[in-house]
Parts: sequence; structure tokens; C-alpha cells
Amino acid sequence: MTRKPSGQRGPVDHDRREQIITAAHEHFRRYGYKKTTVADLAKAIGLSTAYLYKFFDSKKAIGEAICTLCHDKLLTDIQTVVREDITPPEKLRKTFQSLAHNGADLFIHDRKMHDIVASAIEEKWHAAIAFDQELSSIIRHIILEGREQGEFERKTPIDEACRAITLSLQPIRHPVLLEYNLETLDTDATMIANLVLRSLAP
Amino acid sequence: MTRKPSGQRGPVDHDRREQIITAAHEHFRRYGYKKTTVADLAKAIGLSTAYLYKFFDSKKAIGEAICTLCHDKLLTDIQTVVREDITPPEKLRKTFQSLAHNGADLFIHDRKMHDIVASAIEEKWHAAIAFDQELSSIIRHIILEGREQGEFERKTPIDEACRAITLSLQPIRHPVLLEYNLETLDTDATMIANLVLRSLAP
Repeated sequence: MTRKPSGQRGPVDHDRREQIITAAHEHFRRYGYKKTTVADLAKAIGLSTAYLYKFFDSKKAIGEAICTLCHDKLLTDIQTVVREDITPPEKLRKTFQSLAHNGADLFIHDRKMHDIVASAIEEKWHAAIAFDQELSSIIRHIILEGREQGEFERKTPIDEACRAITLSLQPIRHPVLLEYNLETLDTDATMIANLVLRSLAP
Repeated sequence: MTRKPSGQRGPVDHDRREQIITAAHEHFRRYGYKKTTVADLAKAIGLSTAYLYKFFDSKKAIGEAICTLCHDKLLTDIQTVVREDITPPEKLRKTFQSLAHNGADLFIHDRKMHDIVASAIEEKWHAAIAFDQELSSIIRHIILEGREQGEFERKTPIDEACRAITLSLQPIRHPVLLEYNLETLDTDATMIANLVLRSLAP
């Protein structure tokens, strides 16, 4: 989890910080992120605003922490896929499906959290950039593994292959696009994976 | 141009309709679409609101007409590319570049029009859906031509190939994504085109 250095504390305070994140998560889930002020949040949690500011220097810092939790869950799912005993093409396919499913799930069942993730991307929060980097590094790992095993072509510079695939994932993972294509998301994820795998053929 | 049947008139009225579209275009460009009411627009053009409603049944109908003008310009550029005496892979490349350039141009030099196009997509206006269909049909045409000439593979169902390519174009043509990736747009368009062309290799 990424935090502002100014908000860091020892182990006891660490627990308190986690409590604040959990309570803020619940509050944002119910009332939304944009409408809530730090004062509203402090009141709902039963803490003073000043005390809350000891851990986070802004509402955005709390939003970032929650956003990172969402991303961590998604990354854990994808990392599980990467460690499975399956071929690199299957790993790519499952990564695409996982992104699409998680995104749709957040949108359908946890709409207000989906809105926070959308804000994070729109406003280029650190949490969103870190997630992009992590996802990109997972994709690079799968491509390199596929190249080693002779499953994927080796001519395209790895940076380019990786960037192009990351871009091609946008329609199934960007909150705005995902929302627009919700009905065809599963088929779209499969079709994009197929296109990417054809592009990787040796 | 697509219009509500209720707004259709004879040749003289047709000229007047074009005048309204041109004036509305200028007005929206300067003051934005969302903030302008039909009454504001009528006043600025020097017509009564009632007269304006003779041609368009809502502000959205005027927005749609302007949006269609934007799209027509872009489609004309792409159709010119398609008619050039170049190979199908080059046609695809140029189509991608054209989409990226036009989108960036609108965003940088005509921000308020960019916002109208963004609304059109977000709210699934007829103009946006018609543009998608037209673009998709151009891509299908290029793929089929490439298949005939033995430049592209023929195994993938044409509907799937076409849909997947249309999806892969989103990062360089969707207003929200384009805005986010503005600095890398040219390179991104090239990288996506390369990926798509690798996927089409026989």
C-alpha cells in the first residue's frame, strides 16, 4: 500500500490506519466518494478531523489507499493465474478474462467503488499509475515466458509488444469503456485475447 | 445527415436548417454545448425558439447534426485513404493515423466540439452509433481486400476480426482515452497498427 510519508506511524497507529481505511471504504461505498468531505468521514467514523489528518493528508490520500486495496485484490487474482501450470497463451487469456470480470463485478455490485477507480484513472492518481505498471510488468513476464517456450514470436521489441497489448486491453478494463460495453464484455475479452494471440504467433 | 423526420422540410427550409446548424456550431464552439439552452441559441442566432423547434425537436437533435458534420469530415478523410492506390496494410495504418490525428486535432484546437463528441458517445447518440457502424464497415472492406490479395489470413471469422480491430482502436479514438494518452498518441497509433497487422499476417 502506498502512503504519504507524512502519514506514517508505528505499529499501533498502523492498526488505526487500517481501521480508518475500512470505515472510509464502507462510507464511500454507501454515500459515494465525491460527495463526502473529510469532516463527514471523521464524524461517521467517530474520530476528530484533526486525528484523521494525522494519518492521511487529504481525502484523496484515503481514496488512494482504498483504490490500492481494490487493485491489490485484482492483482492477486491475476498473479494466481500467472503461477498456474498452464501455457503462456492460456495465462494471457485468463488475465484478460480476469480483468473484464473484476471490472464488471465492481461496476455492477459496487458502483460507488467503480466511481472511485474511475476518478483515480481520470485524475492520474498514484494508485492508478502503480496498477498500470504492475499489470504491464505481468504482461511482459507472460510474453517473455512464451518467447522462451517458443510459443510467441521474438521479432517485435518487447517494450512495443507489451505497450500495444496493454493498450488493447483498454476496452475491457477502462471504467468508462467497460461501462459502455458491459453487455458484450465477455465476448469482447475473448476476441481481444484472440487478436493478441494471433499477433504473438511465431 | 440524420435528422428527426419531424424536423424535415422542403428546399428553402433546408437552407435555413443548414444556417441554424452553422450558427449553432459556432455558438457551441464558443460557449459549450452543455451550458447552452435552445432559448440561448435562438437568441444568439436571432430566431424565435418556436421557429428553431420547427427544424429540430431538441437541443440534442442540433447536437447530433453537428456531431454528424464532425464525423463526416473524419469519414471523408478515411474514405480518401481507402481509395488510394496503396496496399491494404498501408490503408489500415493510415486509417489508424487519421483517427488519432483527427481526434487529437479536435481535442487541442476545438475543445468544446470534442466535448460534444464525448457526450455523443457517452449518451449513445444516433450520430455516434452511425459513425461506429461506418468505421466498422470501412475496416471490414480493408480486411476483405487484404484477404483477396493474400496479404491477410483468412481463418478468423470476418465479424470477429472486424470487431476485435474496432475494439483495439478505442485507445486512439475514444475521447476520454485519447485525452489521457495525448502525448503518446502517434506512437500508440503506430504500435496498435503494428499489433493488428501482425494479427492479420497469413
